[in-house]
Amino acid sequence: MGGILLSLPIASKSGHSVGFINAIFTATSAVCVTGLVVVDTATHWTVFGQTVIILLIQIGGLGFMSMATFFALIFGKRITLRERLVMQEALNQFNIAGIVRLTKYILITTFTIEGIGAVLLSFKFIPIYGVSKGIGLSIFHAISAFCNAGFDLIGNFRSLTPFADDFLINMVISFLIITGGLGFTVIVEVLQKRKFSKFSLHTKLVLYITGILLLVGFIAVFILEYNNPETLGKLTLKGKILGAFFHSVTPRTAGFNTLPTDKLTTATIFMTMVFMFIGGSSGSTAGGVKTTTAGVIIFTIINIIKGKEDTEVFNRRIPREIINRSLAVIGIAMVLVIIVTMILSITEAGHSFMEIFFEVTSAFGTVGLSLGMTPSLSIIGKIVISLTMFAGRVGPMTIALALAKKQQKNKGLIKYPEERVIVG
Amino acid sequence: MGGILLSLPIASKSGHSVGFINAIFTATSAVCVTGLVVVDTATHWTVFGQTVIILLIQIGGLGFMSMATFFALIFGKRITLRERLVMQEALNQFNIAGIVRLTKYILITTFTIEGIGAVLLSFKFIPIYGVSKGIGLSIFHAISAFCNAGFDLIGNFRSLTPFADDFLINMVISFLIITGGLGFTVIVEVLQKRKFSKFSLHTKLVLYITGILLLVGFIAVFILEYNNPETLGKLTLKGKILGAFFHSVTPRTAGFNTLPTDKLTTATIFMTMVFMFIGGSSGSTAGGVKTTTAGVIIFTIINIIKGKEDTEVFNRRIPREIINRSLAVIGIAMVLVIIVTMILSITEAGHSFMEIFFEVTSAFGTVGLSLGMTPSLSIIGKIVISLTMFAGRVGPMTIALALAKKQQKNKGLIKYPEERVIVG
Ligand SMILES: [K+]
Ligand SMILES: [K+]
Repeated sequence: MGGILLSLPIASKSGHSVGFINAIFTATSAVCVTGLVVVDTATHWTVFGQTVIILLIQIGGLGFMSMATFFALIFGKRITLRERLVMQEALNQFNIAGIVRLTKYILITTFTIEGIGAVLLSFKFIPIYGVSKGIGLSIFHAISAFCNAGFDLIGNFRSLTPFADDFLINMVISFLIITGGLGFTVIVEVLQKRKFSKFSLHTKLVLYITGILLLVGFIAVFILEYNNPETLGKLTLKGKILGAFFHSVTPRTAGFNTLPTDKLTTATIFMTMVFMFIGGSSGSTAGGVKTTTAGVIIFTIINIIKGKEDTEVFNRRIPREIINRSLAVIGIAMVLVIIVTMILSITEAGHSFMEIFFEVTSAFGTVGLSLGMTPSLSIIGKIVISLTMFAGRVGPMTIALALAKKQQKNKGLIKYPEERVIVG
Repeated sequence: MGGILLSLPIASKSGHSVGFINAIFTATSAVCVTGLVVVDTATHWTVFGQTVIILLIQIGGLGFMSMATFFALIFGKRITLRERLVMQEALNQFNIAGIVRLTKYILITTFTIEGIGAVLLSFKFIPIYGVSKGIGLSIFHAISAFCNAGFDLIGNFRSLTPFADDFLINMVISFLIITGGLGFTVIVEVLQKRKFSKFSLHTKLVLYITGILLLVGFIAVFILEYNNPETLGKLTLKGKILGAFFHSVTPRTAGFNTLPTDKLTTATIFMTMVFMFIGGSSGSTAGGVKTTTAGVIIFTIINIIKGKEDTEVFNRRIPREIINRSLAVIGIAMVLVIIVTMILSITEAGHSFMEIFFEVTSAFGTVGLSLGMTPSLSIIGKIVISLTMFAGRVGPMTIALALAKKQQKNKGLIKYPEERVIVG
């Protein structure tokens, strides 16, 4: 659908169709809110094309957000009956009226946050680009940021690099990315309860892991890039702090960049890959295996090391079933990333291992950062990356869902005798 | 100790000391049976130096093998009282006499296998190198292969590439590597019981995972390198089959290579990294996280996907404690590899991400394959890689041991209430 619209000649500035594969790639990238682009969004597409793209992003973003929230609530129903919040009715009677009401709530919250973001951005964009273009850019970037899409209209694949040391842009976009990446249930709970101790375990875990990732990312980028003349090196101290902070925000899973990604040090790039693989939080537009999934496994390992049998976080025990589900999601995701990387290293022979590995984790995490190889992908490469974006988008959630269903019906079978093996 | 001997001027052909860092690096590489070398073993060292190296390998290999076997038996004691085999006494009364008897058994088996290997190799090496050098080379390579050390005396960092299509060398070295990498308890059980169905779960799992890795590796390398003119492309069909087979054997964790590692396709290199990270089997000289550890996690994930609550393999249930231990070993190993790779990408700025990542997994798996950067490592790089070899050597085992101890004493604490989180 979006692919057809984008392949129309009036979507491209040149007046010629961009070709079906490229149109499909862009549409997939927009609906999956990934942000990898084969042609530059600002210079290639007409206003019509750009409008189609931002609508696809908004629809994709909202769709995934509400779907993910519904699933979260269905899961939640069996779980924490005391966590009802605003959606009390939606939870109690999971009927059409409840869904409509919930959807309305999601729409209002989304548009409110995006609206505030757009207004703040316009203070910067209107003086630069004039009133009409400035407003357009503000709305486009607010939506793109909150939906963690990472599409930009700055031009020439530069993303937000011209604004690396701009306080307003950095803060507003970061805020939109972070809130968008937390997931709807978390936003609601934070807005309603306001006290960390009252939050559900899910919200606590999301905030804690997100905080850790931001802190570790900020410190690491600041140190690793401090003297890199291509990135932070040329900026003032204020710019350095903003740049390091923004680069710790963007892998979760926005895909904007204020620093030129391909000029970062290898260490930063590798860390970014790990962050992109983790991605954002469940119930949001973010991709990757999700902060909670990674958090559950990290806390499980820490508890194992401490010699505890159970995974205990914030004085709560995480059920074995959830740990298993996390392990399966991460395991399958790793296998997927490894296989896709191997396929691409055959089809994209001209590119280095790092470029390919980065592109694949970026697509899987629906991040959209790239070391620059996206425009020169082969046709097979484009198809494979499209599929990876899609898998990264719906895959982990589907796996988690399927597992949640399956585990219900496998009770009471014969247990085999235990036997130990030597590991490690 | 070994470092001091190797730093003596008489160890180097030039008559000048190789320098303390290089001597320590080589000694660590030998004792940890890794096989990464900063100077070429054949051309740099005198016969004295080479003798020191092969003794370090044999001592390191035997030491780790017996230590690992003792630990396996201690673990085993609590476990499978019916798995007594030859070491019945050693098991029942874990006293000095038992240890001596067991050590003797290990020594006899090791020397027998190495002896047979050396005799077979001498059929090839004596005609090429003459009697005395030929015998020396046969013994050196038999020990180096069985201990999975990967040191060679062919010269100029070529490893076994001149023998890529030699049937005898390929088969004998592969056999030594595989048996050496299975671990002593497995060798004994196979020799004694001879029937797969009678084996313990540990032995079944080791043989099964090793078989899968060999098969997958062989097929993948054969396909990926078939047309690569630098590797399999120039060989006959026989050479192609031998070359592909050998490259699927060597990451477990021998470190010999018959194909030039740096000329392999990116896909093969990436797969090799995954294999090196997995490594060989517990209770052997091999490094890495171990085949059983990977196997336990893989089967756990498969069982989770199937909706089973327990990890069932070969009609046995794997205890939760073992699964936890495997998860901790793999998790810690990944964190280690990621951090070391980041450190080296700062200190070794001239090398590509792939070279560095490969070197680190190789060191961690104590494999010893390299894309060629070992000789040009900086001093910090050499120290870090030495530590990584050491961690890869003793780390996973120590972690597993420490966890086994800890889990005993943490029973009967208060259980926190369960609370679910949304993952995936
Ligand atoms: K994105
Ligand atoms: K080795």
